[in-house]
Amino acid sequence: MDNSHDMAGELLELGNRIQAVLDELFPVDAPENDYLTDAFWYHMRSGGKRVRPAMCLMTCREMGAETEKALYFAAAVEILHNMFLVHDDLQDGDEVRRDAPAVWVEYGQANAINLGDFMLGRACSAVMMTPVDDGTRCRLLEVFIRTYENTCRGQAFDLNRRGASDMNVDEYLRMVRLKTGDYLVLGMIGGAVIAGAGDDVLDAIRELGHLIGPAFQIRDDVIDLTHGKGRGGMLGNDIREGKPSILYAHALNAASGQERRMLIDTARQAREHIDDETVRDIMALYERLGSVRFASEMASDLTRRAFDAVEDIPLQNKDVFRRLVRFMAERTK
Amino acid sequence: MDNSHDMAGELLELGNRIQAVLDELFPVDAPENDYLTDAFWYHMRSGGKRVRPAMCLMTCREMGAETEKALYFAAAVEILHNMFLVHDDLQDGDEVRRDAPAVWVEYGQANAINLGDFMLGRACSAVMMTPVDDGTRCRLLEVFIRTYENTCRGQAFDLNRRGASDMNVDEYLRMVRLKTGDYLVLGMIGGAVIAGAGDDVLDAIRELGHLIGPAFQIRDDVIDLTHGKGRGGMLGNDIREGKPSILYAHALNAASGQERRMLIDTARQAREHIDDETVRDIMALYERLGSVRFASEMASDLTRRAFDAVEDIPLQNKDVFRRLVRFMAERTK
Repeated sequence: MDNSHDMAGELLELGNRIQAVLDELFPVDAPENDYLTDAFWYHMRSGGKRVRPAMCLMTCREMGAETEKALYFAAAVEILHNMFLVHDDLQDGDEVRRDAPAVWVEYGQANAINLGDFMLGRACSAVMMTPVDDGTRCRLLEVFIRTYENTCRGQAFDLNRRGASDMNVDEYLRMVRLKTGDYLVLGMIGGAVIAGAGDDVLDAIRELGHLIGPAFQIRDDVIDLTHGKGRGGMLGNDIREGKPSILYAHALNAASGQERRMLIDTARQAREHIDDETVRDIMALYERLGSVRFASEMASDLTRRAFDAVEDIPLQNKDVFRRLVRFMAERTK
Repeated sequence: MDNSHDMAGELLELGNRIQAVLDELFPVDAPENDYLTDAFWYHMRSGGKRVRPAMCLMTCREMGAETEKALYFAAAVEILHNMFLVHDDLQDGDEVRRDAPAVWVEYGQANAINLGDFMLGRACSAVMMTPVDDGTRCRLLEVFIRTYENTCRGQAFDLNRRGASDMNVDEYLRMVRLKTGDYLVLGMIGGAVIAGAGDDVLDAIRELGHLIGPAFQIRDDVIDLTHGKGRGGMLGNDIREGKPSILYAHALNAASGQERRMLIDTARQAREHIDDETVRDIMALYERLGSVRFASEMASDLTRRAFDAVEDIPLQNKDVFRRLVRFMAERTK
């Protein structure tokens, strides 16, 4: 049975429902140029698939609360996601986002920093605007800020372990759990909080995130070698940036002395000094050392365990979580 | 009667009381390097005078609540202030902070962006940790995020109006009210919320901020010409950066065609192309056009009106506000 096609359509429809909230939070008809709204909508121009907010709305609805109640939180999740993209592109020196110049290229570095800062403020404001009682509002803010902080913590490892000679797969997993563990399921957690879920349910969803989040990131690391990441279709971007990917972490510990040296040296070089041949050499090395197969198998294993984790969620009806995990698993095949 | 000496000592003692909260939020004894804590404490090394958190604690106490209750909010205000310094230095290209390399120089641009992001998360967490009921906690977060957003909005003008040919004093005041209006009195507002103040009191304190904040910023603009801003004592830093200061805004509208051209051209040049002689010429022009006197008189007028605004605060005992405004006024003489 093909669940993913229906699901994609349903999520797309749900995701589009946050548009009115985004328009309210970043009004384009302001009397005067505020030097923020234009840059925000420039970044958001392509719209994206808005899967994260859609997962929030669907979780809320399927757990028995009104979808409308979750619109502000869903918008906050989407703003947060894009806030990180704005800052990440600058941190990584990525000049292209969604096949156009990144915000920092178009508006300058200073504006990109300040826009990201402002977007986080608007995201928090959106969480505060959720029409729930003060206790629920505080819980929403707690899960939101906790996730935000963990993403920053994971990013700190990502930035500072480039070219590390003692990186390994365990450390990679710790980093990725911080950076994407809570993050990918934040919408689901918010939807569950609004629907009145207890801490045991939230913990179980978080556990799910600690499996499906890393699975997602590992697939993303592999996709960088096979399809590129939408930055003009260029392959091996992570290699050029020296990112501590699952492939780097695995290969480093499987390689011989001379290959190890090449991996570390390349990761430590500035991206403009890395030529296409070096990237091809390292991609071939990843294949030869079995790093790509290792990564794919680990992603599959994590996904399998995510399906098991769904069954541990202490709710009668787990169907929405089954469908969402299946959808995420199919998107990353 | 000399109020300021006693007051300085009392504020210093109060400000130091947030140290335990900062230690809790950024623990140095973590088992592993997290690539954030070191950079945080590097930035915070000099301690600073911590006047902002002290004003929070004093307001809370004088309005009848326990000082302890406001410790987390006071710490949040201090973290927020320093988060902006970390990002501002990078945005402005300022290499020196507190007579040592700025965070972005010492740890790199990417880490400076991510550290600032993380600090904002920790600041929000601190607000959430305030031992009050959920309703009060929500009010605290609302005033905190509102102030944060307005500061970003003001910063957007600051960044994008450099070298503007149509800048004027009214626009300068609008920008500064956004950037520092709520900001300077945020601690006082938080302390008042914790002590159970009504919205009418908060509005009156905010009104106070909209007078004393701009007064503070205008004095700061003038200090840049007379004493420098602690960046190695260099004068005219705002001129080198092309900042839309009160002096620029006034002089632009008082200058003749040729002088106007020089003001605009200099503001639009990269700082490394501006020599000391040009800075001296512009400083002399500011004197000749009466811009420095105009700025000083405006700051004095705003300070006078701030004293009047204190008397409008709908509280029986306004003494703490009288003392705080007097203290701030004396520090900027």
